[in-house]
Amino acid sequence: MDKYCIGIDIGGTTVKLGLFLTDGTVVDKWEIPTRTENNGDQILPDIAASIKEKMAEKGISPEEVEGAGMGFPGPVLSDGYVEVCVNIGWHDKNPQEELSALLDGMHVRSGNDANVAALGEMWQGGGKGCRNLVAVTLGTGVGGGVIIDGKILAGTHGTGGEIGHIHVRDEETEYCNCGGQGCLEQVASATGIVREAKRILAREDKPSMLREKGEKLTAKDVLDAAKAGDELADQTVDTACRYLGIVLAQVSMTVDPERFVIGGGVSKAGKFLVDRIWKYYDHYTPITTKKADIQLAQLGNDAGIYGAAKLILG
Amino acid sequence: MDKYCIGIDIGGTTVKLGLFLTDGTVVDKWEIPTRTENNGDQILPDIAASIKEKMAEKGISPEEVEGAGMGFPGPVLSDGYVEVCVNIGWHDKNPQEELSALLDGMHVRSGNDANVAALGEMWQGGGKGCRNLVAVTLGTGVGGGVIIDGKILAGTHGTGGEIGHIHVRDEETEYCNCGGQGCLEQVASATGIVREAKRILAREDKPSMLREKGEKLTAKDVLDAAKAGDELADQTVDTACRYLGIVLAQVSMTVDPERFVIGGGVSKAGKFLVDRIWKYYDHYTPITTKKADIQLAQLGNDAGIYGAAKLILG
Repeated sequence: MDKYCIGIDIGGTTVKLGLFLTDGTVVDKWEIPTRTENNGDQILPDIAASIKEKMAEKGISPEEVEGAGMGFPGPVLSDGYVEVCVNIGWHDKNPQEELSALLDGMHVRSGNDANVAALGEMWQGGGKGCRNLVAVTLGTGVGGGVIIDGKILAGTHGTGGEIGHIHVRDEETEYCNCGGQGCLEQVASATGIVREAKRILAREDKPSMLREKGEKLTAKDVLDAAKAGDELADQTVDTACRYLGIVLAQVSMTVDPERFVIGGGVSKAGKFLVDRIWKYYDHYTPITTKKADIQLAQLGNDAGIYGAAKLILG
Repeated sequence: MDKYCIGIDIGGTTVKLGLFLTDGTVVDKWEIPTRTENNGDQILPDIAASIKEKMAEKGISPEEVEGAGMGFPGPVLSDGYVEVCVNIGWHDKNPQEELSALLDGMHVRSGNDANVAALGEMWQGGGKGCRNLVAVTLGTGVGGGVIIDGKILAGTHGTGGEIGHIHVRDEETEYCNCGGQGCLEQVASATGIVREAKRILAREDKPSMLREKGEKLTAKDVLDAAKAGDELADQTVDTACRYLGIVLAQVSMTVDPERFVIGGGVSKAGKFLVDRIWKYYDHYTPITTKKADIQLAQLGNDAGIYGAAKLILG
């Protein structure tokens, strides 16, 4: 009995759902569209209907389900209250209470999506076996999640783990989405890597295989070229990794995790990227020889459903 | 019954002790010398004897004491094990187990002194009423302590809260005690403020009331002169406060505390200092309007005994 749990990862376009055994085994994964119209008021009813349908399909009774966890892109208070969740239209509501009611009183918990993904990586991914880790997602932006003693550190105002907006570069003149200048995200996200590469290409009078890409240049192009030995691409990647190393060092001097787990599209560059980040992380933590290690995330886009399910298991 | 607790703060010269009621009221405070000879092997017996003597003097029975907490200057693992504690000579020992045995089985807990002081400020000082705070001590060095949900975040390897060694200044050429270059401590500690003032005085061809101080220049001189409107002193303090503001912003993007509590000798500059740090902290946290506040520490050198006593109360 009580052997299933459900993970829900709500994005701006799609809701991912996962049915798990409580030992972390995936029983089923599926997706439904996120209907953001009318302040997203159909999102939770859609999720509840989909879960009930899946349970009926599998012949699972409510008594066999420990509960459902969900992650969504916005700050969540510890009681589940959401002031605003821009991407999916929510304002001033308590989605976990609403979903619980729609699921006839099922135990429901919720968290910020980046934090929940970090929890997923701790449970069944690159952080398996760790109780203290910090996950860093290098995608369109730079996200983060801090896990201390097996629990998400959400913070007092919901900005725990927002390491993409740590200030690293005094000389930056462009603005970040957050309104700041010189955020980590501006140099280490996929967007930031492309931007930095274009700057370097414009500034340096050297050949580079990136020049032929023109406006279509992607972060993957830059990383591939750096691996192939292209000097200007390497300089771009080195800049991103240096600032990432500095930020991981800062985070270590604050919460001292056992491990950093690096995920997101940029992390597909693999060991090449991790080794370069490590070089700088090591340089900027001379205070101790006992350091966190840096590993790649393993769950990809499923980290959110894993972490959401884990929310229920405590 | 069970109404007392004892706080012990072990420094390189003096051991401070405090007898408290469990509601935080101080019953007595006293000090004994720290005998660091022979790997500090007399420190714990001295402490145990002093505590027994005080209990006899006050007519307090062991049953009336919840326990004794202690802080000391080094990293402590969660089971109390200490690999090395340079200033007081300890190597490879478990001081909390030893002290407990010397006190006939009294409940004893221990922690790093900076973390313990942070806990003290949370309990009865500038952080009273907060469960999530970060304390920053601006003294000879820059120390820190992170408290999450009312507990010390010691970290996996004991570097939690070592915010003095966060890298902030790329162009720094001198080395910090930790072996790094450009640590916060190099610019925002009392030592760092003096060093920076001397650099600015040497570099700038402007009058300053600091010039007459010569080699005897202190951080207090610099802060007093800045308050009095001295331009070069103000520039020095502004540099320290800017880097402090950046680091507090970084810490907020990581653990998002409710409050920062600023203590140590430099913090005697009071509101003048806090307002300047706040200006930069606010600037470097554009991501949210809900920010931690910054308050002055209130317990001075007693923060350690308060925090140590609080270790016992959980």
